[in-house]
Amino acid sequence: MSKVMAVNAGSSSLKFQLFEMPEETVICSGVLERIGLEQGIFSIKYNGEKKVVEKPIPDHSVAVEMLLKALVEEKIVEKLTDIEAVGHRVVQGGPYFKDSAVVDEDVVAKVEELSELAPLHNPAHLVGYRAFREALPNVGHVFVFDTSFHQTMDEERFLYPLPYEFYTKYKVRKYGAHGTSHRYVSEQVNELMGNPRHSRVIVCHLGNGASLSAVQDGICIDTSMGFTPLAGVMMGARCGDVDPSIMPYLCKKLNKTPSEILHIYNNESGMKGVSGISSDSRDIENALFNKDGKATKEQSERALFTSLLYARIVSKYIGEYFVEMGGLDAIAFTAGVGENAAYLRRLIIDNCSRALGVFLDEKANAERKSGNRLISNQYSQIDVYVIPTNEEVMIARDTVRLLNL
Amino acid sequence: MSKVMAVNAGSSSLKFQLFEMPEETVICSGVLERIGLEQGIFSIKYNGEKKVVEKPIPDHSVAVEMLLKALVEEKIVEKLTDIEAVGHRVVQGGPYFKDSAVVDEDVVAKVEELSELAPLHNPAHLVGYRAFREALPNVGHVFVFDTSFHQTMDEERFLYPLPYEFYTKYKVRKYGAHGTSHRYVSEQVNELMGNPRHSRVIVCHLGNGASLSAVQDGICIDTSMGFTPLAGVMMGARCGDVDPSIMPYLCKKLNKTPSEILHIYNNESGMKGVSGISSDSRDIENALFNKDGKATKEQSERALFTSLLYARIVSKYIGEYFVEMGGLDAIAFTAGVGENAAYLRRLIIDNCSRALGVFLDEKANAERKSGNRLISNQYSQIDVYVIPTNEEVMIARDTVRLLNL
Repeated sequence: MSKVMAVNAGSSSLKFQLFEMPEETVICSGVLERIGLEQGIFSIKYNGEKKVVEKPIPDHSVAVEMLLKALVEEKIVEKLTDIEAVGHRVVQGGPYFKDSAVVDEDVVAKVEELSELAPLHNPAHLVGYRAFREALPNVGHVFVFDTSFHQTMDEERFLYPLPYEFYTKYKVRKYGAHGTSHRYVSEQVNELMGNPRHSRVIVCHLGNGASLSAVQDGICIDTSMGFTPLAGVMMGARCGDVDPSIMPYLCKKLNKTPSEILHIYNNESGMKGVSGISSDSRDIENALFNKDGKATKEQSERALFTSLLYARIVSKYIGEYFVEMGGLDAIAFTAGVGENAAYLRRLIIDNCSRALGVFLDEKANAERKSGNRLISNQYSQIDVYVIPTNEEVMIARDTVRLLNL
Repeated sequence: MSKVMAVNAGSSSLKFQLFEMPEETVICSGVLERIGLEQGIFSIKYNGEKKVVEKPIPDHSVAVEMLLKALVEEKIVEKLTDIEAVGHRVVQGGPYFKDSAVVDEDVVAKVEELSELAPLHNPAHLVGYRAFREALPNVGHVFVFDTSFHQTMDEERFLYPLPYEFYTKYKVRKYGAHGTSHRYVSEQVNELMGNPRHSRVIVCHLGNGASLSAVQDGICIDTSMGFTPLAGVMMGARCGDVDPSIMPYLCKKLNKTPSEILHIYNNESGMKGVSGISSDSRDIENALFNKDGKATKEQSERALFTSLLYARIVSKYIGEYFVEMGGLDAIAFTAGVGENAAYLRRLIIDNCSRALGVFLDEKANAERKSGNRLISNQYSQIDVYVIPTNEEVMIARDTVRLLNL
């Protein structure tokens, strides 16, 4: 038995889960938020209890110290050396990492180099990593990349129709995102289908960010996110694919720089921009069905339209991947929206029903249950599943595998 | 019988075809090129003969004068008043024109207003129109818009997931392009299928510019071009859809303005950018099969990859529209590449074969014949056609219809 810490360090936060492996039991989990701001928040769940402490967390080193100290004080571990390894989530692995990697100097240098492609994420991951490395210098550290699962895409899928030297000189290509989630969910689906020799699965990872992937025989052959996590389907506040001419037009019209327009694309678009209500699909659902009686008629209509647009765009990608894989065995929904927004799952599948012969079991779709579940009915030619994603367990599994624990 | 002139005026050129209607006989056709440059070229085809004159054509008024004078001198018409109407192609009709329109002051004002959305095209159309109006003040003039056929798309298809006011304030939405071609070709396909009550047709207009449309029961429900003709599939020199984050990244990397990057997207990308050979699919085909023995191994490989990428992107859209229309009865190829590049048609349809049960008759596909033709085989669940496009005849037809000639 080994204790493995799975870490996801953002620019001002640090999420963690401590696993007992290989049982995959979660010993404790939590998050340190508002790092570097005036007042920090440290939440930890252990033995079914949640404890929240508010106090300043000046930087990631302090965050890691606080966390490790709490683990001993709360007797979650006897001593820090009980933690045998740390697995770190890294957003951008570029073309270098086809699998997770045991961290050494070369690995760190590459992640640093790739910061240019993920300026908000990679530097934060490294800050988190260094803080853990300092606190736990004698244990193995592993980086688990969001992009690795998509590295199996061939050139036909990852190259853009741009001048070829943009790829060779500036690394402009499709990298994808949410790979750890796509890998986890597609593995779960294959298991549920009895691990057939051949399988064609579309994973719809619909969260605040959203991406689809086409997974054939366990291998990712295509995905909707691109050079950055802006591309692909409509998301909570991101626009996904739009005519590339719109940016220079808006720069002129609004007298803004490309970076300013990009900020709008990333933060003021998607569900938020179209609905004028919120980037959160729960708020859209509230307005759509007027659950709290507060939505105006216009808000209701905009919420409906937002949902229809969202479903339309997702179902277009399902059509793409259906053709690319030469057919389809299963569609899986995961992440915040995918796991919870039954009305959106229904709109998406309804869009595909006639062409693909895929049908929901309305009752199963509407039910609020945890765990993996089938939501298609007996007439459906394609299985539809809801699979709660679990990136943390994948990080722990990869850490154990690569360090031979 | 009436003589109707169909005109396509560009910034430095003016293409024309004179029709005998309603027989749709082409009396003569030709082009005036290099208008405003030092040396102009005036080519005219009449009675199977082609005549080319090189002399300066300072502006569009002179071009129209030269054309009309030649018609009388060559005895193509007895007198100018034999021309009963002129139909003009207009690229951008924005949200205003769901059909072609008899030109009046209001129509001109709207086309002028829309210049902002088609800065290279609409002003040139108006210059051409004014020159003809001056020369033929007493005949009817009709504008035929490239966008009209796509005006039947609903909001779910034409709105981008951007802040809603970008649509209401700045007209940012999908307009589509090549509408006259999509309309002509889909009508031909429906006729070839015996005008069934219900039909689902995908038109692949693949020329230098390229777009696909989904035509259900004769009505366009979706199309691949967007706010501008840059969006959608990969083209000769245009990239089509790419991650919108790439532009600001390239602006920084290359120290260029958004307009400069846009110029690269429009002129140095697509087949040209990926292959490093040419924007012309014939050159790519030459290099691919090394027809002239001049291609290096690297050029051959790049040509193959370019073709595979092109076919992959087009077939993805076929998948989208298959799902959107709830099935598919026919795929039609048209325009320069679509009518002639048998190897690309084959790659595209091969990509779709397994998922859609669509199969080519290899011999029919390879044959170089003119006219409409079926190229799918007896096992195919979907008809595949090659339909030579004819935008000019649609312009003449609309002109006759709207002026009740």
